[in-house]
Amino acid sequence: MSQERTEIGSLGEFGLIDHLTKNIDLQNATTILGVGDDAAVIDHFGKQTVITTDLLLEDVHFDLMYTPLKHLGYKSVVVNLSDIYAMNATPTQITMSIGISNRFSVEALEEFYEGVYAACAKYGVDLVGGDTCTSKKGLVISVTAIGEVAPDKFVKRSTAKKGDLVCVSGDLGAAYVGLLFMEREKKIFLESPQVQPDLEGESYVIGRLLKPEARKDIVDFLSDAEIIPTSMMDISDGLSSEILHICKQSRLGCVLYEEKIPVHEEMKKAVFKFEMDPTACALSGGEDYELLFTIDPTEYEKLVLNEQISVVGYMTDEEAGAKIITKGGNTHPIKAQGWVHL
Amino acid sequence: MSQERTEIGSLGEFGLIDHLTKNIDLQNATTILGVGDDAAVIDHFGKQTVITTDLLLEDVHFDLMYTPLKHLGYKSVVVNLSDIYAMNATPTQITMSIGISNRFSVEALEEFYEGVYAACAKYGVDLVGGDTCTSKKGLVISVTAIGEVAPDKFVKRSTAKKGDLVCVSGDLGAAYVGLLFMEREKKIFLESPQVQPDLEGESYVIGRLLKPEARKDIVDFLSDAEIIPTSMMDISDGLSSEILHICKQSRLGCVLYEEKIPVHEEMKKAVFKFEMDPTACALSGGEDYELLFTIDPTEYEKLVLNEQISVVGYMTDEEAGAKIITKGGNTHPIKAQGWVHL
Repeated sequence: MSQERTEIGSLGEFGLIDHLTKNIDLQNATTILGVGDDAAVIDHFGKQTVITTDLLLEDVHFDLMYTPLKHLGYKSVVVNLSDIYAMNATPTQITMSIGISNRFSVEALEEFYEGVYAACAKYGVDLVGGDTCTSKKGLVISVTAIGEVAPDKFVKRSTAKKGDLVCVSGDLGAAYVGLLFMEREKKIFLESPQVQPDLEGESYVIGRLLKPEARKDIVDFLSDAEIIPTSMMDISDGLSSEILHICKQSRLGCVLYEEKIPVHEEMKKAVFKFEMDPTACALSGGEDYELLFTIDPTEYEKLVLNEQISVVGYMTDEEAGAKIITKGGNTHPIKAQGWVHL
Repeated sequence: MSQERTEIGSLGEFGLIDHLTKNIDLQNATTILGVGDDAAVIDHFGKQTVITTDLLLEDVHFDLMYTPLKHLGYKSVVVNLSDIYAMNATPTQITMSIGISNRFSVEALEEFYEGVYAACAKYGVDLVGGDTCTSKKGLVISVTAIGEVAPDKFVKRSTAKKGDLVCVSGDLGAAYVGLLFMEREKKIFLESPQVQPDLEGESYVIGRLLKPEARKDIVDFLSDAEIIPTSMMDISDGLSSEILHICKQSRLGCVLYEEKIPVHEEMKKAVFKFEMDPTACALSGGEDYELLFTIDPTEYEKLVLNEQISVVGYMTDEEAGAKIITKGGNTHPIKAQGWVHL
């Protein structure tokens, strides 16, 4: 090993991935798209296969103190399917690997798998394999999802064009507010175990955290409306971080309008209890699993009536940078609030 | 959650997987083969896709005290490719996810990825995706491998026939003996850090542990010789455990001959230092990543001259059970020495 020591935190998650994968030399003609998007694309004679994978670790990605195992199983599948939909593809199979310790009973695992199978049934995918092993240190979940897409109909992050409209599905920030509630109640419980959790009226934000859905309906709508987005990805890390990926990979800038960013009424009510700003949660809170995509402006008419889609801005020249215009009319640069665990 | 509590250890790894996957109802016509073999098979118009995944956890599957990171990266890839070859398929792509803590530097990860890329280059596969995240508790590695196979040329575990010859590639048990050495030296080091490790002359068994290879050459040979095995799997848990999978899934029994089981001369010399029996290591030691397969006896002539393949017995009726005939002429039932961590 070299004597140098560069801290991983100095690169950040995306810098680290770029660094470790920059010299990849693809060897197979069937590899259409490799590292660097929501999923990879592999050619298979007439159809293309899309593949994505996620690793979920206890106390990093989930807290078993407030995450029911059935919900965890469901969510573990959904977050991967979301990446497949973000390629404009249809998921067909998953593999599920888990590392478990003997603090789990067979009944606990059955509950986890109930959630896995519920997600498989809802999205029409098959569980086709996996690996089960002992973990000495917390629950480990690794899911790989496979999907299919008609040849060259997959949508990357790098193909947005100047002037394209920026669209998001659903509403943003609620899962993060759900997390704030759960963390608050956990803290209270650890200090005073006799106090009952107070989550009344917060079912929307908590549901968004614990039982997210992948936006199959949006991909189906786009297909029916004959809209092929010019770029697309799912929103797992917050809108700021994700739009910056599209800007960087498409070599463009953007303008977003704060007032256009969709937030749910229940989320607005909830977030004021923490004296936080809804827009900040929408921009920087993660785990919404909504879709972020760009369309040619001539397609606008086709989606304007869909209440599940909001146009939040447009793409500009790279030199113009990524900007947000606030409700008060001020312009600010968009900053990533990404992965800061390390 | 139910009030019952069934300990996971009461089912064992394979019992647990069977239990959790027994009710799977496949929904996609493209799912040709699901859970229960080395890999799953997915149809893609003219070719079939094979997919397999493994989860590797620090202090369960590897010990960083004696595993160089480059070797670990290499081995993480190879063990997955081995599962693809065990389906009689050719690996084409992998995804690699890692959970890392900040005790690793960027240089340490580069070393790990050097091993990953070395394996990719050697076996002609592309790294096409993955996930990098923080682990608070040890290194977590999850690899998924994709391969392709001509339609219906994949080989399952469940299709051996009575009278078929049982074949193994290479030699068995050496990786386990390598592990015994490493564990011994680790213990000595922890007790007396000034003592230098004594591994002289043990490079064969240690190499088998730290840098296993997948038997691409055997799959290529079988293809060239126009032999399609009647069943096949890789040997990751020891010959006993694996032949019992083939017996169970093919509903057959078998007879193996101790004297036919291939063990390396270096392994025999090494194992006597631990006063253990080479056959016991071959039967119960894991991580050899050789291939176990059955062939129709009429194919015997085609492989008899290949020194890398040993015929070790034959398949019998299910009622006859799985038996081994020792060098002394005694007959014993074959018992699995599987996964006993939980």
